[in-house]
Amino acid sequence: MANGQRVAVVGATGAVGQTTLKILEERNFPVREIRLLASARSIGKKMTFKGESLPVDAVSAESFKGIDIAFFSAGGNQSKQFAPIAVKAGAVVIDKSSAFRMDPTVPLVVPEINGTAARKHNGIVACPNCTTIVTVMPLKPLHDAGKLRRVVATSFQAVSGAGVGGIEELRAQTMAWAKGEPMTAKFFQHQIAFNLLPAGDIGEGGYTGEETKLINETRKILDLPDLPVCPTTVRVPVFTTHSISVNAETERKVTAAQAREAFGRFPGLRVYDDPSKNQYPMPLIVEGQDDCLVGRIREDISIANGINLWVVGDQLRKGAALNGIQIAELLIN
Amino acid sequence: MANGQRVAVVGATGAVGQTTLKILEERNFPVREIRLLASARSIGKKMTFKGESLPVDAVSAESFKGIDIAFFSAGGNQSKQFAPIAVKAGAVVIDKSSAFRMDPTVPLVVPEINGTAARKHNGIVACPNCTTIVTVMPLKPLHDAGKLRRVVATSFQAVSGAGVGGIEELRAQTMAWAKGEPMTAKFFQHQIAFNLLPAGDIGEGGYTGEETKLINETRKILDLPDLPVCPTTVRVPVFTTHSISVNAETERKVTAAQAREAFGRFPGLRVYDDPSKNQYPMPLIVEGQDDCLVGRIREDISIANGINLWVVGDQLRKGAALNGIQIAELLIN
Repeated sequence: MANGQRVAVVGATGAVGQTTLKILEERNFPVREIRLLASARSIGKKMTFKGESLPVDAVSAESFKGIDIAFFSAGGNQSKQFAPIAVKAGAVVIDKSSAFRMDPTVPLVVPEINGTAARKHNGIVACPNCTTIVTVMPLKPLHDAGKLRRVVATSFQAVSGAGVGGIEELRAQTMAWAKGEPMTAKFFQHQIAFNLLPAGDIGEGGYTGEETKLINETRKILDLPDLPVCPTTVRVPVFTTHSISVNAETERKVTAAQAREAFGRFPGLRVYDDPSKNQYPMPLIVEGQDDCLVGRIREDISIANGINLWVVGDQLRKGAALNGIQIAELLIN
Repeated sequence: MANGQRVAVVGATGAVGQTTLKILEERNFPVREIRLLASARSIGKKMTFKGESLPVDAVSAESFKGIDIAFFSAGGNQSKQFAPIAVKAGAVVIDKSSAFRMDPTVPLVVPEINGTAARKHNGIVACPNCTTIVTVMPLKPLHDAGKLRRVVATSFQAVSGAGVGGIEELRAQTMAWAKGEPMTAKFFQHQIAFNLLPAGDIGEGGYTGEETKLINETRKILDLPDLPVCPTTVRVPVFTTHSISVNAETERKVTAAQAREAFGRFPGLRVYDDPSKNQYPMPLIVEGQDDCLVGRIREDISIANGINLWVVGDQLRKGAALNGIQIAELLIN
């Protein structure tokens, strides 16, 4: 495709970077040229894109010459350092890190929810935190149906949310367990196999970084700056898919049937909720899927206008790489 | 101890029964005679109590002659059939099943919370559901401090809550994974290793049996028949310890510091909440402990009078066997 996009993937060897390459292929994203970039320790690695073996280069100030779209998933520091350089070189940066998400000049976008915001960028479009993306997917249609008054969200976050190192740690610890060997924690603060940890570092007021992101980013994406959000984020021994238990209170009554219908109509969201057939969203079945699955939809009997739901999304896909590519598609169309 | 109790353990070979024997030993409960009872398929098995190998007998109408205290943990049907027989034979039944919990003539007891209710029994004292016990432990001091207005609880329940079969299933599936073999679900409806499932069967209105228990039993134990409770119960790939994320709204403001102090004073509850040292309650460290650990204590910034907390309790101990033995201790003292 001679008139396709010249793409850079910064953090290509990471969990999100790898998934970005896979989804660019799957969706046949119009790539004219692709440049794989990563930190110095990945130089010399080779990665495959559309059957072609490509070298991984070190990211530098020169990396973005001639690039149209740069996907960044190499962490906040890399984004802070190189995103402005990429923009200056003429690229649009789609940034998966937290570096610019709360910058008022940078749109924070989930295409199904606030896609139009992406067009107002100044070179950078930010992708929300993975847990936030999965959580807001059902919140948006619920808000449209009944106006959100308050949200209590408890997450069950996969180890992939912490990167390749998290996946490796769960794998290594579980293997050690199976061999009767001691399980050592190198990546997380404590053992994650058969255990539960807070997701994110705990900061001021006792909230983790993940919890603070869930509050602030949900408000920004939904354009509800005062929405009361009460988050608890938990890391669970699951590989790549995030689940969130959501209790949402609305101004106007939304019945379970109305919520189900609103979710069913919303793009990127699929209702999977037939307990009589033991069908409910589970990490096991959502892994590898683009849609977020929502189930356990039931009216909250503890308040007048409440809905409970359970939403599950592949952290590496809709929670990260896919959402970024959807933003890119939106910008080039 | 010639004047000790003559004890029967019904369901002795189950996960709770085994733990009951262990804790009776640990606490040096005054046992004069012990009778191990189980369903027909366990007859002929031997179990050890205080160094003595004892046979497991089939439970029958004759099993309770001369028994003072009968611990039942063999499921609702066994309790319904044999508890009245045991009572008629003169025993006090401490029942871990759900058979009598909501019977208004049967006290439902967590000794630290409503121990005095146990004395008003008519032969049967019911032990609450394991998730309920762990959840109400911090709710009681919080209620005393600020009067509960509403509770949103999301559980992370270990496989042991479903019995020995649940533990075996997680073990077998994880072993299969380690060997690269397919994981088959025999006990739970779906794979539990590296996955999440609803805890309990989903019934009327979309609530699981576990969720309905959490609502009804919390109200009965706290003697707050109208308390609004919004539960979501989830099975996680953890072996024996339940964790619950609780958001509680109170009539009067309770600060995080006040909540921490109230929890610290409450028997059976231990505050473990020093994020700067990466100390927070985790299944890993609570397994085998009698106390429930509470941490992540923080004010809910989404409402005026809200407290968030994370409470973890060994499902087989405080969630089941220990609570039953504490009831027995209370009755014989």
